[in-house]
Amino acid sequence: MSKQWVYFFGAGKAEGDKDKKDLLGGKGAGLAEMTNLGIPVPPGFTISTEACNAYFLAGKKYPEGMWDQVIKNLKAVEKIMNKKFGDHKDPLLVSVRSGAKFSMPGMMDTVLNLGLSEASLKGLIDKSGDERFGWDAYRRFITMYGSICKEIDRMKFEHEIDKVKKKLGVKNDIELGAAQMKELCVKFKAIYKKETSEDFPEDPLEQLKGAINAVFASWFGAKATTYRKLNGIPDDLGTAVNVCTMVFGNLGDTSGTGVAFTRDPSTGENKFYGEILVNAQGEDVVAGIRTPMGVSEMAKHFPDAARDLMNIQDKLSKHFRDMLDLEFTIQDKKLWMLQTRVGKRTAAAALKIAIDLVHEKQIDEKTAVSRVEPAQLDQLLHPMIDPKAKVKKIAKGLNASPGAAVGKAVFTSEAAEEWAKRGEKVVLIRLETSPEDIGGMAASQGILTARGGMTSHAAVVARGMGTPCVAGCDALEIDVKKKQLKVKDVLIKEGDFISINGSTGDIILGAAPVIIPELSGDFAEFMAWVDKFRTLGVRTNADTPADALKAREFGAEGIGLCRTEHMFFAPERIKAVREMILSDDVEGRKKALAKILPMQRKDFKELFEAMEGFPVTIRYLDPPLHEFLPHEDKQINELAKEMGVTAAKLKQKISQLHEFNPMLGHRGCRLAITYPEICEMQTQAIIEAACELGKKGKTIKPEIMIPLVATLKEFEYLKAVCVETAEAVMKKAGQTIEYTVGTMIELPRACIVADTIAKEAEFFSFGTNDLTQTVFGLSRDDAGRFLPYYVDKKILPEDPFVSIDQGGVGEFMKLAIAKGRGVRPKMKMGICGEHGGEPESVKFCHRIGLSYVSCSPYRVPIAKLAAAHAALSTGGSTTK
Amino acid sequence: MSKQWVYFFGAGKAEGDKDKKDLLGGKGAGLAEMTNLGIPVPPGFTISTEACNAYFLAGKKYPEGMWDQVIKNLKAVEKIMNKKFGDHKDPLLVSVRSGAKFSMPGMMDTVLNLGLSEASLKGLIDKSGDERFGWDAYRRFITMYGSICKEIDRMKFEHEIDKVKKKLGVKNDIELGAAQMKELCVKFKAIYKKETSEDFPEDPLEQLKGAINAVFASWFGAKATTYRKLNGIPDDLGTAVNVCTMVFGNLGDTSGTGVAFTRDPSTGENKFYGEILVNAQGEDVVAGIRTPMGVSEMAKHFPDAARDLMNIQDKLSKHFRDMLDLEFTIQDKKLWMLQTRVGKRTAAAALKIAIDLVHEKQIDEKTAVSRVEPAQLDQLLHPMIDPKAKVKKIAKGLNASPGAAVGKAVFTSEAAEEWAKRGEKVVLIRLETSPEDIGGMAASQGILTARGGMTSHAAVVARGMGTPCVAGCDALEIDVKKKQLKVKDVLIKEGDFISINGSTGDIILGAAPVIIPELSGDFAEFMAWVDKFRTLGVRTNADTPADALKAREFGAEGIGLCRTEHMFFAPERIKAVREMILSDDVEGRKKALAKILPMQRKDFKELFEAMEGFPVTIRYLDPPLHEFLPHEDKQINELAKEMGVTAAKLKQKISQLHEFNPMLGHRGCRLAITYPEICEMQTQAIIEAACELGKKGKTIKPEIMIPLVATLKEFEYLKAVCVETAEAVMKKAGQTIEYTVGTMIELPRACIVADTIAKEAEFFSFGTNDLTQTVFGLSRDDAGRFLPYYVDKKILPEDPFVSIDQGGVGEFMKLAIAKGRGVRPKMKMGICGEHGGEPESVKFCHRIGLSYVSCSPYRVPIAKLAAAHAALSTGGSTTK
Repeated sequence: MSKQWVYFFGAGKAEGDKDKKDLLGGKGAGLAEMTNLGIPVPPGFTISTEACNAYFLAGKKYPEGMWDQVIKNLKAVEKIMNKKFGDHKDPLLVSVRSGAKFSMPGMMDTVLNLGLSEASLKGLIDKSGDERFGWDAYRRFITMYGSICKEIDRMKFEHEIDKVKKKLGVKNDIELGAAQMKELCVKFKAIYKKETSEDFPEDPLEQLKGAINAVFASWFGAKATTYRKLNGIPDDLGTAVNVCTMVFGNLGDTSGTGVAFTRDPSTGENKFYGEILVNAQGEDVVAGIRTPMGVSEMAKHFPDAARDLMNIQDKLSKHFRDMLDLEFTIQDKKLWMLQTRVGKRTAAAALKIAIDLVHEKQIDEKTAVSRVEPAQLDQLLHPMIDPKAKVKKIAKGLNASPGAAVGKAVFTSEAAEEWAKRGEKVVLIRLETSPEDIGGMAASQGILTARGGMTSHAAVVARGMGTPCVAGCDALEIDVKKKQLKVKDVLIKEGDFISINGSTGDIILGAAPVIIPELSGDFAEFMAWVDKFRTLGVRTNADTPADALKAREFGAEGIGLCRTEHMFFAPERIKAVREMILSDDVEGRKKALAKILPMQRKDFKELFEAMEGFPVTIRYLDPPLHEFLPHEDKQINELAKEMGVTAAKLKQKISQLHEFNPMLGHRGCRLAITYPEICEMQTQAIIEAACELGKKGKTIKPEIMIPLVATLKEFEYLKAVCVETAEAVMKKAGQTIEYTVGTMIELPRACIVADTIAKEAEFFSFGTNDLTQTVFGLSRDDAGRFLPYYVDKKILPEDPFVSIDQGGVGEFMKLAIAKGRGVRPKMKMGICGEHGGEPESVKFCHRIGLSYVSCSPYRVPIAKLAAAHAALSTGGSTTK
Repeated sequence: MSKQWVYFFGAGKAEGDKDKKDLLGGKGAGLAEMTNLGIPVPPGFTISTEACNAYFLAGKKYPEGMWDQVIKNLKAVEKIMNKKFGDHKDPLLVSVRSGAKFSMPGMMDTVLNLGLSEASLKGLIDKSGDERFGWDAYRRFITMYGSICKEIDRMKFEHEIDKVKKKLGVKNDIELGAAQMKELCVKFKAIYKKETSEDFPEDPLEQLKGAINAVFASWFGAKATTYRKLNGIPDDLGTAVNVCTMVFGNLGDTSGTGVAFTRDPSTGENKFYGEILVNAQGEDVVAGIRTPMGVSEMAKHFPDAARDLMNIQDKLSKHFRDMLDLEFTIQDKKLWMLQTRVGKRTAAAALKIAIDLVHEKQIDEKTAVSRVEPAQLDQLLHPMIDPKAKVKKIAKGLNASPGAAVGKAVFTSEAAEEWAKRGEKVVLIRLETSPEDIGGMAASQGILTARGGMTSHAAVVARGMGTPCVAGCDALEIDVKKKQLKVKDVLIKEGDFISINGSTGDIILGAAPVIIPELSGDFAEFMAWVDKFRTLGVRTNADTPADALKAREFGAEGIGLCRTEHMFFAPERIKAVREMILSDDVEGRKKALAKILPMQRKDFKELFEAMEGFPVTIRYLDPPLHEFLPHEDKQINELAKEMGVTAAKLKQKISQLHEFNPMLGHRGCRLAITYPEICEMQTQAIIEAACELGKKGKTIKPEIMIPLVATLKEFEYLKAVCVETAEAVMKKAGQTIEYTVGTMIELPRACIVADTIAKEAEFFSFGTNDLTQTVFGLSRDDAGRFLPYYVDKKILPEDPFVSIDQGGVGEFMKLAIAKGRGVRPKMKMGICGEHGGEPESVKFCHRIGLSYVSCSPYRVPIAKLAAAHAALSTGGSTTK
């Protein structure tokens, strides 16, 4: 017997259930589960993801037994429905839909009304008694089959409809009658024949094969591939194919089709939210072409179906203990459920729903924590438009995805991507969006559409991306060709600033002032749970007291990286720094450093005060010295005058300092080894600042961090300088400061000799930016030319500067941890690269046993949540 | 009981022997061995190297028991000599000499005549009956003790001698009488007092302590440290101190002091070679101040001593089975041996002696192979002055160190170092050299001195360094101040070219033409033995047929690295290369590549023919493309015209290609991944060339090597391109070529994922240049600013680009080997960086199990010898 490739559902019993998402996809598992719960689902069957993968592995051939199983299941459906596939009298029609493990809205293609042919159409018309309905169903089927299965440009079909509408002088499809629909079918078939050189298939089994193949093929279609790449979904999951008995929402005013959320997907409010389009098929809803009716109106129009829907949503909500996204169709007043799945939601909604469910005792705190995606949390922390600011609101649309976006207006996805590449912040303005716009949407700060509802493509995708979106604002007159937007008397051209408030739907002229939301209430309650389950420490990267205070607000447990060079760039200090660089001897350098000392001391004092009681890790001067010098003639001349040297001498010094590969040059600890006086000054400033505060009874925990160490000797040499200086300062001050001296691990060599370095270093902090650069031999500044190409060609699964390359860089980290802890078992080890705020990297850091991660202030809650997720899924074995 | 720190020798019995070099140093072990052999050695004792290390570890304090043991051994010497240390009547005097495990000529300090004081001097004069001798001994002692133990400028003493000589109108020290010597002693003591604020010590034990301390201290003196650094001798070996009864070569004409070699150290000829200075102490010989007498003259002057010396040298030669360097003194006609050690020799001598000893059946072939230092072999392979060339010989000196040197004349060591740093080749011209000149000598192509014999400082050190040297050419009138050299009517100024022939002693005006020596005779016989014991393969780096042929002559077993980009730079090709770079699309690039294809095919055909039967590893295009474009305005304008584009467009392209860190940029396999057509063209050229030759019945073994691979996917991607192209070419040609596709391992990531890469790669070749750069995060081009400083401060033991950093880079190599061979057990693995010709690196490659090393043609024999040494010391476990 061959393997089971096909799973049946119908008449109250299904072969699958909600836990078989890997095999049946989200949609298939949901249909099976609903069937098992006794909820009315049109019978059908699901071809498994295994079948999809087997199909591609075999070179696009069905695996053995699959087709036989399809036929067998089709017969079972025919039996329940008492109809025959392709029948001339009462034909069984089916929908064919994709359904992967993860929901990919709008990405996968669907074919409806499959099974229709000249012959069976007659049966459909006879049976429904509605000729227009029959021909409409047929022309929709030809359109979908032609465009999806045969890749005919959909516009070719739409164009014909437009011509007919124009001829009749009508606006909407619904105004076309049976004759026009029939006429369109003839024209569509001609288009089909012209484009494919084949007749439109009469055989319903041939149609079914074509549709199954198209669903499979769509898994590797450009849209789906892009979506997976953006969302980090692996390519080898495959998609299932759901073949389901057709029910019709377009059988007149007693029918309709709709979508619903069991709670508000935007705010999380515990309020059922639904929309239904009367006399429509599913595709009409998603496309956002007409504006649907809400739940209260539906209760009047479809009282029985509405009551059933409320009961079902209640049953499902309790069963799944989560907010659900439902799809349904009412055919002749009878409700059919077509889909249930955990609904996408905004970060605010995710948080509110998780908290409410805990309060309702439906889920526990651990579950609540695991229900919110760390990356999503970012939305909550993003700036919002200052409610007190006087802004010019020019229109209002639907608040489709919350948050504020400010950017320059662009009118095509291509423009959005181009401008963004140049570093511009843009707001993408479209009539409506389609899957082709994914790239441009991802590149934009915000999305604004003139058409479509809360479940339109733009709204769903924007929420998924965490991008603010205002949808369906029909006051907008968009002219893509002229690259402009008119709202009444206001004209906005490409490049003009525009702001949108995705939380209210407001559209604002110009760049509105933005503020940061408060982090109390729900957020605070949730973060308290996060902190309860998390074992990995979370610190912040901060160079200023303001950053440090902000990070403490977000719950940072210390500073993991203070980059002292940022303190050197301040206008009033750069002069002394340059004086130091231009000195030819130790004395000259010391003299210049003496000028910097009091400023550094003040910096550290303020930073220590802001982080009182928490450790503060200070990285010593890191960048090559030429970064502090000007490179343009004019500035060089000015500086020369200021410094009292000739421009020629200054130029010579600058050219002496020029490096072919600054990344691999005279920087990091190499600076302090050649100029130990810099290390002395920095140590003096730190310890003096700590002593001053210590005298006032404050607990200061400085951690001195030496960058770019490759050998034990380098570290020993500089540690000796630090300790000697620190001891002298403390003796003079009569104070004792508990300081430690550790090192960054950011070179491959440091990883492989970590056991020797750990003999002297009191802590390690992984600098995964530089470690990635050296492990790959890849300059971050130069990688732009080929790295996107690498990701496109799947040579790299993703940009290793965004998420830690676990198989390479990660292996080096593990090596260094094992070697370091072999010598110093409880050694404190952290990470201070930008990876420290990226959820997958944070989880990795938890798994490999780091003590803490350090990230930018705004990413502290994200890192904490990722850490909690990691602890909940692996158990908390890490030491803080 | 405390540890034994002191080892006695005397009266036919010694506590040490020749195998205790680690403990007693070379000199101490030699003295002990000679004593045990019954050879007349003045009795004494050796303070061990362990005592030296213990002394430094304890903060310059003698270890417990050491001083007591010194006193005890001193008493034993007194007993044998029947004299008392510091005695007023017949005082025992001693010499105090350093002696490390490895001979460090002129590096360590020696104090003679120790034990003399106002009181004991009387005894010495009474006993010798020679007042001048006594006062001369005393003034020598004050000089040595003052300058060495108290760091008084020796010139202060010499200046007084000069004044006295001037006053008397005499030239040589020997012409000074007792009165002058006495007068000098008074003056010297006054200098001593002025410089140290102490009286010159009367107590001989205080003197002894001072001298022992000075010998210990000299181990970390600047000269010794430099020498160790240049010769790769570790700092923690320590030096022994030899305290030995004084015998006097300056007791008149019946006395003398000399040095000898049991075979000729320059040519290796089996001919005893000795020099003796009558009425002189050891220091006079080494300084090369007077010209000594040879062996035949000595036989007349000192018949008994000469006969004894011949017997002793015969006995020692057979005992040690090697060429020996002897030091002796004749005191009152009686011969005393002061030192025996294996003698330094030129490469030619080393080779000849090793071969002769095999022929004489004194040693076996393995021993012969291990007797020649790989680095030394370099001398034999160096160019020599074309004997047929018409050159202007302007003078002749001693042929002190063989080989030809051509360079610009410099007159100080500082100048030599400065000019060399600028990339100039220099010949250092000095009156005589001293240990202070070590740095300048190392920086020079050749050394020319006006004074001193074959055993003068210049001669000994130059031979050790393998640097050509002509010594003792008294025709030279050197004016250091004017920076010029006059030889009769010829004037050579600083910067003028001069050539020396160290094999003949000729000095030649201008830059003489040089040729390469033939590699037959002794050399061929020796290399045959080397090949017998060696297990590591040795290939060459060669980009041209000429290089390939030269390397085969040297015995290369294939090409380990052919850098194809060198073929791209040729003037007639660069145009097509630039055309390719400037193309905006695949078609344009393919068109340009089609022009390069026939040239590449021709290159490979010639290379394959030159290396027929051996593997040829071809690295695909590696450098960033901007390296092929001009960067100066003028050239850009010219090229733009040539290419038919605007200068602006060309400039834009060049600036697009600019990289911040080219080392880490768009290069290596990244080029071929973004432009697979380059990889296709190169594969086509290789396989077509191989097919053409294959048709003629030739065996061609191309190995395609992909550079800068970091991930398996990169390699897979390009291997697929190579294989597809190669299969198509072979199919078309109807030929089958056995080619392999492998990768360079030159990135840390490749090392750590070597197991995955090895699934597809058929061989590995370590690119240790780039691997060192990325492991250290260190650009070779930029490291010059701080790397010397690092080596100076001992943060790195040596430049990791010269000799493999075994503790870091080497660990990565081991990791990659273990991972690669774990997947592909017999995988061929080589190295093709410049380390492949450096002896210590070659030995390391043998130990870690590489299949072969690849190096420049001239280093092939060196690599082979190093490989044989490694095999002989570890056993040959490597697969070829």
